[in-house]
Amino acid sequence: MDLNSDLGESFGRWRLGDDAAMLRVVTSANVACGFHAGDPSTLRRVCEQAAAGGVVVGAQVGYRDLAGFGRRFLDVEPAELVDDVLYQIGALEAFARVAGTRVGYVKPHGALYHAVVDHEAQAGAVVEAVRRYDAGLAVLGLPGSALLRRAAEARLRGVREAFADRAYTPAGTLVPRRQPGAVLVDPARVAERCVRLATRGEVVAVDGTVIPVSAESVCVHGDSPDAVRMAWAVRRALDDAGVVVRPFVAGSEGE
Amino acid sequence: MDLNSDLGESFGRWRLGDDAAMLRVVTSANVACGFHAGDPSTLRRVCEQAAAGGVVVGAQVGYRDLAGFGRRFLDVEPAELVDDVLYQIGALEAFARVAGTRVGYVKPHGALYHAVVDHEAQAGAVVEAVRRYDAGLAVLGLPGSALLRRAAEARLRGVREAFADRAYTPAGTLVPRRQPGAVLVDPARVAERCVRLATRGEVVAVDGTVIPVSAESVCVHGDSPDAVRMAWAVRRALDDAGVVVRPFVAGSEGE
Amino acid sequence: MDLNSDLGESFGRWRLGDDAAMLRVVTSANVACGFHAGDPSTLRRVCEQAAAGGVVVGAQVGYRDLAGFGRRFLDVEPAELVDDVLYQIGALEAFARVAGTRVGYVKPHGALYHAVVDHEAQAGAVVEAVRRYDAGLAVLGLPGSALLRRAAEARLRGVREAFADRAYTPAGTLVPRRQPGAVLVDPARVAERCVRLATRGEVVAVDGTVIPVSAESVCVHGDSPDAVRMAWAVRRALDDAGVVVRPFVAGSEGE
Amino acid sequence: MDLNSDLGESFGRWRLGDDAAMLRVVTSANVACGFHAGDPSTLRRVCEQAAAGGVVVGAQVGYRDLAGFGRRFLDVEPAELVDDVLYQIGALEAFARVAGTRVGYVKPHGALYHAVVDHEAQAGAVVEAVRRYDAGLAVLGLPGSALLRRAAEARLRGVREAFADRAYTPAGTLVPRRQPGAVLVDPARVAERCVRLATRGEVVAVDGTVIPVSAESVCVHGDSPDAVRMAWAVRRALDDAGVVVRPFVAGSEGE
Repeated sequence: MDLNSDLGESFGRWRLGDDAAMLRVVTSANVACGFHAGDPSTLRRVCEQAAAGGVVVGAQVGYRDLAGFGRRFLDVEPAELVDDVLYQIGALEAFARVAGTRVGYVKPHGALYHAVVDHEAQAGAVVEAVRRYDAGLAVLGLPGSALLRRAAEARLRGVREAFADRAYTPAGTLVPRRQPGAVLVDPARVAERCVRLATRGEVVAVDGTVIPVSAESVCVHGDSPDAVRMAWAVRRALDDAGVVVRPFVAGSEGE
Repeated sequence: MDLNSDLGESFGRWRLGDDAAMLRVVTSANVACGFHAGDPSTLRRVCEQAAAGGVVVGAQVGYRDLAGFGRRFLDVEPAELVDDVLYQIGALEAFARVAGTRVGYVKPHGALYHAVVDHEAQAGAVVEAVRRYDAGLAVLGLPGSALLRRAAEARLRGVREAFADRAYTPAGTLVPRRQPGAVLVDPARVAERCVRLATRGEVVAVDGTVIPVSAESVCVHGDSPDAVRMAWAVRRALDDAGVVVRPFVAGSEGE
Repeated sequence: MDLNSDLGESFGRWRLGDDAAMLRVVTSANVACGFHAGDPSTLRRVCEQAAAGGVVVGAQVGYRDLAGFGRRFLDVEPAELVDDVLYQIGALEAFARVAGTRVGYVKPHGALYHAVVDHEAQAGAVVEAVRRYDAGLAVLGLPGSALLRRAAEARLRGVREAFADRAYTPAGTLVPRRQPGAVLVDPARVAERCVRLATRGEVVAVDGTVIPVSAESVCVHGDSPDAVRMAWAVRRALDDAGVVVRPFVAGSEGE
Repeated sequence: MDLNSDLGESFGRWRLGDDAAMLRVVTSANVACGFHAGDPSTLRRVCEQAAAGGVVVGAQVGYRDLAGFGRRFLDVEPAELVDDVLYQIGALEAFARVAGTRVGYVKPHGALYHAVVDHEAQAGAVVEAVRRYDAGLAVLGLPGSALLRRAAEARLRGVREAFADRAYTPAGTLVPRRQPGAVLVDPARVAERCVRLATRGEVVAVDGTVIPVSAESVCVHGDSPDAVRMAWAVRRALDDAGVVVRPFVAGSEGE
């Protein structure tokens, strides 16, 4: 099982999250690339720390929307989105290379993440950008999303992720953030769910139903005040349960 | 002799220059990387056209200043400037690779170009970024600049450029733009100067003095209304004089 | 009848349209406010020229999207959109005041213009911003739009506009830009349509049907190469037909 | 004596400082206007809270440099700087008006603050913008600065400020931030210095010399973790010493 987290989301004077601490817990770092967050010096720092710690660097690509942190749907033309994604991957790659590693995968951020669940044209654009850039890169996304289906069609490796601290509906989708109980805050309970997910491939939905959830990576959030503590609770519980926590991208450091 | 020009300087709705036409004349394209100009789709288009035409792609790196087009000095810390330059090179590299070529050199733009003539810390930062990214990249700049001296100290290849349409002082420096006569507008006269520069390594300064100017590349401007006509005048004159016009970066397409 | 046009859409090094020439033709200037286009110096210049020529200044408010020129739908929260609109009106007002005039109306731009035709929340947000800022300001928009309905509900003055160079469906809506024949390019024909619209309140739709179109202002485009010529054709034809061409905002200069 | 603080410096997802808490302590709020920090919703919120609490709103104008938080000198042309300042004042004014108050003064931020100490052209540009916008606005700055001298020449009200937590040289200038001891961190000591400044017009310099410092306003920083505690220490000490703490702009709420 892999643990991924959104990192590198500071911008200039504004700090967000504790990247260095999170990089000691997770195995894959979704690094912001400057369009919705992430200034160049932050990218460099996270890439250096990730490389030093054996954490795989992924490109957390988003809409060009600093003011909205990429959390607002932007109706960008697919052809332009391909270029926007290429630009972001390339910018991050410079820092990955200088740090002695490579970008190993791509994960859409925020509103783009949600859009590519069913917006076929934008999902196709993200996949097309990855395919053009390097067909060896993996694409990290929601199980059942247009993104992962199109990645498969393009013969890219699609990686399914689950969310450590989010409630699931009986249908296996995430309970929308605005609903009560959508986000779990008790580290012990979140950790226990992750262990069950990792060892038995199942999650208890909000109505008590046990549903199958197949995931190769679990996303832990990086920007809440308790993020580091929560991430460690998940990590330790997985370690204690004998789950091997490692990147889904293998051998990136040995390339 | 190489002919270089600033290209890719459009941004979204705003068009600047005729990139496709200029790419049929020059041998090296200084492509804006998004900080002072250049949206991702423009970068892709220029890289594709440059690769198709055998024109070498260079990273035209600048200050993060869209509103000022990178023409205003920005007192950025050297460590941040290193990261800003790396980000820009990487972003452009994505499009160069997808187009089947590579970034072959780096040329600072606008106020950064002028700053690195004698701003040691910023000159050092640009060189450091190039060195870290790929010590095989060339650095294009003004003869006698701190940039080229520091490039040499870092064992990077520094490439000296001359300006086709600018008047020179007897000391071999450019006449400041604000002075009358600083910019030459007659294509025939500009072309003749370029031939003399290429064949005899000399330029007639504003006071009539003949001064030695050693350059491996001549910069022709890409964004004036007459840019294409001027560039062709220079190109044809060089061709007619038997000067071999070719990129200073060799074999980039054959990598 | 009023003639309005989108002006002030340059940004830094990038010029768009001939603001000074258009300001000699139109009676209302929709001035970009910096979010999708328009740098401060451009705003100042347009306001000065508008004030000098007795042209009314309107705030052409848009999404915060320089790269997309405000032409891409952005799913901004209504509460934030209220603030974004207030910010833009205020910024423009500074230049209007310094030029001795005032912002007289608000017109949404690009994708926001299209969104507020039926996006109730965003239409409501634009109206709310205007109401809070100054309930004496007019709102310029498409007849039948949510924007104008909500403006009326908030007791703001809504002003209906028609498009000089756009084809209409029999239902009275605009033929989408992507369809052939959507944009009329013959100045004589456009001018003739504007006269018929102004004098008889009717337009010939694409299928030959004559439909009623009631408008207090006609929009002429400002950024095409032929914009000035087209605008003059419309203006002269209206003058010749005895139509009084004047701003829909009265007496703004005498305030 | 007035207490001022830099507020409204959040941007989108990124929070900075505790504006609401600071607004209960200070009497003048230097509100960022969007060029170096401050999104529209933040501006609205701060203006509302300031107006509700009787705190005067000032425009904290800066260079257009979000990535650098306005802390890097930008060599902007004076004519453009005039327009940049006007734009910022106007944007903030919209929120001030909607909140029932007005912008009462202008204070340059960051690198612009430091530039206008001796950069005559930029100092003149800031003053010119204020004069054109409203000659009734005050200008807040460093005693002895070009800014305050030029404000006086333009018959604007210049207001001298002192810094609560900064060490002074025997010459009465601030000890540069990079030197050890430049920033005082003990609230009790800072508070005591402010009382002495307010009651006796003097400060103990780093070498122990007692120097005269005449100030109408004291700046307390708003963005450090201890900012609120420090500000309250200063405020309470002034109150206890019988110093009347009130805005230097009088009656703004009653306009």
